[in-house]
Amino acid sequence: MTPTELHDVCLPPEKTTFQKLRRKLSEIFFPDDPLHRFKNQTRVNKIMFALHFVFPVFQWAPSYNFGLLRSDVVSGLTIASLAIPQGISYAKLANLPPVIGLYSSFVPPLIYAVLGSSKHLAVGPVSITSLVMGTMLNDAVSYTLHPVLYLRLAFTATFFAGLFQASLGFLRLGFLIDFLSKATLVGFMAGAAVIVSLQQLKGLLGIVNFTSKMQIIPVLKSVVDQRDEWSWHTIVMGFSFLACLLTTRQIGMRKPKLFWVSAAAPLASVIVSTSLVALFESNLPNIATIGQLDKGLNPPSSNMLYFHEEFLAVAVKTGIVTGLLSLTEGIAVGRTFAALKNYQVDGNKEMIAIGLMNIAGSCSSCYVTTGSFSRSAVNENAGGQTAMSNIVMALTVVVTLLFLMPLFKYTPDLILAAIIVTAVIGLIDYQSALSLWKVDKLDFVACLSSFLGVLFVSVPVGLAMAVGISILKILLNVTRPNTGILGNISGTQIYQDLDRYRDAQRVPSFVILAIEAPIYFANSTYLQERILRWLREEEDRIAANNDSMLKCVIIDMTAVTAIDTSGLAMMNELRKILEYRSLQLVLANPTGSVMEKLHRSNSLESFGSNGLYLTVGEAVANIKLSWKAKP
Amino acid sequence: MTPTELHDVCLPPEKTTFQKLRRKLSEIFFPDDPLHRFKNQTRVNKIMFALHFVFPVFQWAPSYNFGLLRSDVVSGLTIASLAIPQGISYAKLANLPPVIGLYSSFVPPLIYAVLGSSKHLAVGPVSITSLVMGTMLNDAVSYTLHPVLYLRLAFTATFFAGLFQASLGFLRLGFLIDFLSKATLVGFMAGAAVIVSLQQLKGLLGIVNFTSKMQIIPVLKSVVDQRDEWSWHTIVMGFSFLACLLTTRQIGMRKPKLFWVSAAAPLASVIVSTSLVALFESNLPNIATIGQLDKGLNPPSSNMLYFHEEFLAVAVKTGIVTGLLSLTEGIAVGRTFAALKNYQVDGNKEMIAIGLMNIAGSCSSCYVTTGSFSRSAVNENAGGQTAMSNIVMALTVVVTLLFLMPLFKYTPDLILAAIIVTAVIGLIDYQSALSLWKVDKLDFVACLSSFLGVLFVSVPVGLAMAVGISILKILLNVTRPNTGILGNISGTQIYQDLDRYRDAQRVPSFVILAIEAPIYFANSTYLQERILRWLREEEDRIAANNDSMLKCVIIDMTAVTAIDTSGLAMMNELRKILEYRSLQLVLANPTGSVMEKLHRSNSLESFGSNGLYLTVGEAVANIKLSWKAKP
Repeated sequence: MTPTELHDVCLPPEKTTFQKLRRKLSEIFFPDDPLHRFKNQTRVNKIMFALHFVFPVFQWAPSYNFGLLRSDVVSGLTIASLAIPQGISYAKLANLPPVIGLYSSFVPPLIYAVLGSSKHLAVGPVSITSLVMGTMLNDAVSYTLHPVLYLRLAFTATFFAGLFQASLGFLRLGFLIDFLSKATLVGFMAGAAVIVSLQQLKGLLGIVNFTSKMQIIPVLKSVVDQRDEWSWHTIVMGFSFLACLLTTRQIGMRKPKLFWVSAAAPLASVIVSTSLVALFESNLPNIATIGQLDKGLNPPSSNMLYFHEEFLAVAVKTGIVTGLLSLTEGIAVGRTFAALKNYQVDGNKEMIAIGLMNIAGSCSSCYVTTGSFSRSAVNENAGGQTAMSNIVMALTVVVTLLFLMPLFKYTPDLILAAIIVTAVIGLIDYQSALSLWKVDKLDFVACLSSFLGVLFVSVPVGLAMAVGISILKILLNVTRPNTGILGNISGTQIYQDLDRYRDAQRVPSFVILAIEAPIYFANSTYLQERILRWLREEEDRIAANNDSMLKCVIIDMTAVTAIDTSGLAMMNELRKILEYRSLQLVLANPTGSVMEKLHRSNSLESFGSNGLYLTVGEAVANIKLSWKAKP
Repeated sequence: MTPTELHDVCLPPEKTTFQKLRRKLSEIFFPDDPLHRFKNQTRVNKIMFALHFVFPVFQWAPSYNFGLLRSDVVSGLTIASLAIPQGISYAKLANLPPVIGLYSSFVPPLIYAVLGSSKHLAVGPVSITSLVMGTMLNDAVSYTLHPVLYLRLAFTATFFAGLFQASLGFLRLGFLIDFLSKATLVGFMAGAAVIVSLQQLKGLLGIVNFTSKMQIIPVLKSVVDQRDEWSWHTIVMGFSFLACLLTTRQIGMRKPKLFWVSAAAPLASVIVSTSLVALFESNLPNIATIGQLDKGLNPPSSNMLYFHEEFLAVAVKTGIVTGLLSLTEGIAVGRTFAALKNYQVDGNKEMIAIGLMNIAGSCSSCYVTTGSFSRSAVNENAGGQTAMSNIVMALTVVVTLLFLMPLFKYTPDLILAAIIVTAVIGLIDYQSALSLWKVDKLDFVACLSSFLGVLFVSVPVGLAMAVGISILKILLNVTRPNTGILGNISGTQIYQDLDRYRDAQRVPSFVILAIEAPIYFANSTYLQERILRWLREEEDRIAANNDSMLKCVIIDMTAVTAIDTSGLAMMNELRKILEYRSLQLVLANPTGSVMEKLHRSNSLESFGSNGLYLTVGEAVANIKLSWKAKP
């Protein structure tokens, strides 16, 4: 290897503190540069873009045509046929009157159609948030003893959920929901699905006095203890419908062309079961039904918002947790279909849209809504092209609310339970869990903890555990980073890990160390110990093999993306320790921010002109040359 | 540039889950490989090493000689002359009887001398932990109303502090104290020093009814409101002695050879002020003094430990906070002097030593002790060579306890206040704060927050804020990592950031992106948006300059030290988005763990053989060649 030409290590371009702060803030809050469309545009165009930005409806409305309308009507009717039975069922899951579920499928979809940027999101109540709201509110106020207060708290929590969501969007803090990682969500969802399914045994077995607790043990205990309440009529009918629904679900999943079978099944089974109960009413005395429902559109509920100190904390807490969960589902669904159809959704804008629709919902007798994964998939399958399908769905719900409510009188509770089980069973994504185990054990542990946390402790605790473990994982990686010894791939200037590349060879008299992490207060002590251990082991190896003596330690800083003051102190201390042992310390390829910190802390001078090289190759060549010059 | 020979990207060597877990655990808990000394040794040597390991006293005792003893006696007497007045003062800071401060300078130093591995640590009570213990316990139990219960809680908290410290060491969780970064400690210490100094106005102004609160506002209010209690005798005498002490402190700092001036000053001023008060007792009626102290050695106090449920929580909490703080100071002091004198201290072993000495202390009427920075510096300056200086100090304290206690009867409180102010004023390290501002703005913010948190809220809150901000800083760096476009430094295979290296030139038809962080759930959404924005900006630039069309995106993965399942999903989605735009996505130099994850998740195949290169240079050369082959 001949010594190559030397290249200087540059400092990044000088910037004032203000410039750096501005850049940092813009990276935190505006990574997508949302105003880029407005650059170099005429005033008229700017106004147009602004209008499109705030009301995405203006993007598609002008070019809307009959062909699109036909698709949207078909898909809108399809999702309505799902939304009506699911709305009623999910409202029951949240311990709310069934009609609230229908109200919630009317106002929010209309608002989303105007403000939302996803073309495929089908808006309405979803199972997870219904479950969480039901649990958290019922812990504070019993829905059986104080139904009106419970309802008021539900609207208040919905108001806070919307406020929280819209604020996250306005403040561009949308990235906070990224901290609910996929892995933890898989576990959380599965745990919630198991709990919800077991809770449905109440409806499927016909038990009257069921626990209101949400942990697995009291639920199972309640099922067993209330054996004498089991109603065989209910059980036979319930499990038959459940089997039908699960079968159609399987058909829909196996053959995407037959998706309509699974989409139509819930409404069909509601109709069939209602008819059966209505016809054989006298023979089926033990089957619980929904009962009389009033006709009419959403009554205003802004007067029902309840900001009394006593229950404010629980309303705010429930609002934030359900708001966060519904955002996570809504944004994830929006992004999934956007990626599938190759368009972009803006996370922060979506949050504002979902937030505003929930605030409006809280004033019109709706509870928390978001984009539902299952209905959005049906929407996309049925050929939905724009947010118009949400409008069609909302209008269908209006017709139901105005004219069809008496028909639900004989709808049995067991069919709602069967519909819920069918819907949530899809949340148990064991394949994802398996692939987590295969790919990343720590992600699997996070997944498992949130699963068990939800199952055995409570929903908020499971969620908190999930976030906590995810953050611990990041910290662990920073606290205990990878380090390794590099060798030269002969005939090249490439230096790679000796463990991984068999071709790589040690360079005599050198130890070349790669550090794969920023050097922070949290790892500087570890790194110093670890580097000294690498040296000790290397010296032992040299002593055992009678190799040439160690003279120089090169640290490859390529992956050291940042350094803080503790890290700088460690580097200076390390340099002194090595100097004491007559070893030279050399840094190769420090990144821009590290160079800047070295410069500002005056550590750069202490490394001197022979202590800093652009590449490991140049460092080795040049230092070898200097040894030859003065042996 | 001619196309170079191609090198394969290797997977890391295959390891079982168990092997990886073992390796990970050993990196977390045993980074320093503490058993390495035992490898390839005879049985006798192994026993010897084990003995040295557990009782470092055996390392130096066999070769101890008269020369060392002379140095240690001189330094031991010097630190004793500091430890006696400081012990009494700090005990008052913790709202404890003054004699407890002397007891605490007798038993713990003896135990540390046997178990501790630092040669320069001077053990005894320190200001920060005394202050924190005083505040936290007094919030639960008033020391004026229930002095015995307060004392019992102090011993109990000391017991828990020791238990906590020893457990951290035994469980090898010592790295947890690294999360108290230097930056936050600078702010925390300065805040505590300001509060402590202001509190001393009680003694210096002669106020009798002073607030027991620790925030700056009530303390200042108390000083002003109690104007009519100010005693002019006390003020004149107090501030004169304070001026003397501060002057000698300055002399000691300016001229290290005159360090003995500052070391002897506290004891000298105690003697002078006590004599003055004793002589002019009748003329100085308003000067508060310590009063009668009983002779005698530490009485046993294990029977005073108080584990009653009512106060268990406060004892445990105080124990953990004071334990953590005293560990931080002790370990930092030990490391500082070890680095200065080029020997190593083992953090986990030090924790066990400090923990055991506190457990023993709690059973012999001592409160929390650790290595004091100021006294250790004096110890080193006075020529202390081994832990024997601690033994000499302890024996001097014994002589005081047995024979000299009545002499303190006339020692005025004001001199204790002056000694405390002189000691803590050194904790206000404004130079470090300035250099934090210069080098790292975020570290400065962490420092400032903990300073203000201690000053205006409370000590534990300030501490929690400090840790919180430090962790946020790590998360911020992961959530919003640096990305940048690389260019080729012509005539080389080096690719560097275009912003930073003026020599670097864009490679036509390529966008080469460097990502400077692991790809995690917390940043995968951001990175996808940011990468697409880089492409958009690059395409705009190409359109403006009529450059050659973009065909390939190379991501330099050198600094991507890890990837999780969300990151993998993002990479796959990105590949699809780019494919849709007819852009090729290529990865250069993925690290070992990233390669492994790509392999396990079957993403490797989707990148294909033309999607993975060992270096950016090889990727560019090879892809260009393939374009020439089929244009």
